[in-house]
Amino acid sequence: MDFKIEDGSGYADYRLPEFIVPGFKAAGVVAGIKKNGRRDLALILSDVPASGAALFTTNKVKAAPVLLGIERIKKGVSRGVVVNSGNANACTGKNGMKAALAMTSCIERAIGLEKGEILVSSTGVIGVPLPYEKVEAAVPALLKGLSYKGLGPATEAIMTTDAFPKSAVREIKIGTKTLTIGGIAKGAGMICPNMATLLSYFLTDAKIKTSVLKKALKIAVDASFNSILVDNDTSTNDTSMIFANGVSGVEIKDATPGYRAFLKALTEVSVSLAQMIVRDGEGATRFLEIGVKGAGSNKDARKGARTVAESMLVKTAFFGGDPNWGRILAALGRAGIALREDKVSIAFNGVEVVRNGLDTGKETQAAAAIKTRDVAVAIDLKSGKGSAKLWTTDLSYEYVKINSAYRT
Amino acid sequence: MDFKIEDGSGYADYRLPEFIVPGFKAAGVVAGIKKNGRRDLALILSDVPASGAALFTTNKVKAAPVLLGIERIKKGVSRGVVVNSGNANACTGKNGMKAALAMTSCIERAIGLEKGEILVSSTGVIGVPLPYEKVEAAVPALLKGLSYKGLGPATEAIMTTDAFPKSAVREIKIGTKTLTIGGIAKGAGMICPNMATLLSYFLTDAKIKTSVLKKALKIAVDASFNSILVDNDTSTNDTSMIFANGVSGVEIKDATPGYRAFLKALTEVSVSLAQMIVRDGEGATRFLEIGVKGAGSNKDARKGARTVAESMLVKTAFFGGDPNWGRILAALGRAGIALREDKVSIAFNGVEVVRNGLDTGKETQAAAAIKTRDVAVAIDLKSGKGSAKLWTTDLSYEYVKINSAYRT
Repeated sequence: MDFKIEDGSGYADYRLPEFIVPGFKAAGVVAGIKKNGRRDLALILSDVPASGAALFTTNKVKAAPVLLGIERIKKGVSRGVVVNSGNANACTGKNGMKAALAMTSCIERAIGLEKGEILVSSTGVIGVPLPYEKVEAAVPALLKGLSYKGLGPATEAIMTTDAFPKSAVREIKIGTKTLTIGGIAKGAGMICPNMATLLSYFLTDAKIKTSVLKKALKIAVDASFNSILVDNDTSTNDTSMIFANGVSGVEIKDATPGYRAFLKALTEVSVSLAQMIVRDGEGATRFLEIGVKGAGSNKDARKGARTVAESMLVKTAFFGGDPNWGRILAALGRAGIALREDKVSIAFNGVEVVRNGLDTGKETQAAAAIKTRDVAVAIDLKSGKGSAKLWTTDLSYEYVKINSAYRT
Repeated sequence: MDFKIEDGSGYADYRLPEFIVPGFKAAGVVAGIKKNGRRDLALILSDVPASGAALFTTNKVKAAPVLLGIERIKKGVSRGVVVNSGNANACTGKNGMKAALAMTSCIERAIGLEKGEILVSSTGVIGVPLPYEKVEAAVPALLKGLSYKGLGPATEAIMTTDAFPKSAVREIKIGTKTLTIGGIAKGAGMICPNMATLLSYFLTDAKIKTSVLKKALKIAVDASFNSILVDNDTSTNDTSMIFANGVSGVEIKDATPGYRAFLKALTEVSVSLAQMIVRDGEGATRFLEIGVKGAGSNKDARKGARTVAESMLVKTAFFGGDPNWGRILAALGRAGIALREDKVSIAFNGVEVVRNGLDTGKETQAAAAIKTRDVAVAIDLKSGKGSAKLWTTDLSYEYVKINSAYRT
């Protein structure tokens, strides 16, 4: 493995996934799109047609594979997805769509699938034509590599500037049977030269109707990928897909205890992957949890947490280990939410620095308490029942260094 | 002078203001609020009651002097303003209001004015009680210092982390008479330990009804202080005030050529001061103008420009001298405005890097063209008549350094 494993940082646990999700094969090979000669082409393939659902970037500038995916996922059934790294196939005009179609067609033809059964994702540099002929040339190697144990190489192949591979798995018991819910993802806090594209793929052997699967994915993604903030950008390629192939024979129906167990496990997998992405900023020295409660609504809580999490002044203060509550209070004040300054309390890792809008005089203790990699900021607006939690990083020299480096 | 004057950077032109606005005296003294022993207390006083208008921070967390100002400006008439630096008197609860009142009362009593005739501003650290007794003790020195030539010391006294003082003046001819419109301001791109408080004071010897003055101030501030973005934060203390004492005897009535000339000059003074604030980020190595045209509306153009100007990925790219148009296109895509990717054009200092959403292949020329302190980003959405211009800076190591330094 050539991944950066930072000893003692908590990263040593990260490894390529070794789990299997029954009925799903995967592969990851070198197609030559990445300049560094690493794996850059992945395929995830279900043995049988699977229920499929997907969420795509809200950016109005959408990469060709996203535009194609939006069309193809409407059927609600898919056999899998082919993913390349090293080129985002974004801002590439009509030739971009041609390349996205070519990527799926060569897989479909080789396996003997109908047109439209394979989805596609791309991540990497934007504005550069995708050399899809390299994908076509790599199809034999890709099919040869397909294996139930192939999620490891596939996870490696979707990485761009990721410092470590991201995967998570949960098993749940439904009666006497075991269901598996696995996920792999790529994305890092800061990305150069491309945008911070987030890709995630969830696989399960549960049998679920597409409509229920779609609902569960939306809830899980809102609590995870939509609750992390690193550089506030939304890439042209962000994609989250779920495939449920039903090979376990266990059906998950809406509004049942089974659905709730499935949703809980899916959300755990998704939150786990999303938090790994936050931790993966090379520039990040701290992992910040911004929790807001007591807001007028969940929406207000989220808006408040987001404004705090986006504030460069807050992020740089945490980089410096400064429990600078004034910057947090000021961020809340401009968040456009109902707020009574004289009710706000703020705690850093359990040390209350502001109570009812006033300094508690505990700054020294707070400074000591936040000398940790993980910092929990707990904000109580005491004005309602709304709450939200977001995860973000600090803003360091390294962030600026990496993102200001000229693209080569 | 102990200001940092950077030779060759264009800053050598900046000096303490030497202009006079007829009928306005000013002073700046050392009250001992700043720890470094520099001037920290300013007074601007009109010889006669002046029409007054003011705009205050939209942050819901408002400093005591802002809350007092909101009340007092309702009268539309004022004699002037007392300003301290070194302490923002924000997040200070009821004692904060007591301190703000004490600051104005001691001036009013000493001059023999009625209660409410003097406004007050504060800037500096937040959450720390303001030692208003130091202001009271400095009143004799302040009154002794009052002079028509006193705007220089006053400008110095309102500075916090400013690297240079900010002032601008315009004269306009109305018939045979000359009107003066002068302004002073403080604020810098990044501020540590306090928020990036922006204070600005405009003085004119024109005779103008308060309602007209208010309207003109709003327009001028929207085109200037509301069109700059450095770290996207809104301080608890931001304030812009204008005083028109009428001593020229020239009346400016609404919707006349005189009003238009006055508004033009006021806007020029205001834009000039706002751009100085952008240029003053110690961390800033580039001054960026983000211009958007062809938007569906001016509001959309502003929203698009703002999203680009706020993007940390765009700002770091400019720090690195990288004409990374993909980050700009992606920022526009998530701005929540009407956008057709295949119509967007982007130019850097006149070099078109994107036309109709596609790479023009001129990146090398663009990289050469942006090796300048000032970079103009011209975005054309070709979808309407809306346009807007914002000014911001790049994001550098120095920004992170200054803002992460622990408050001392």
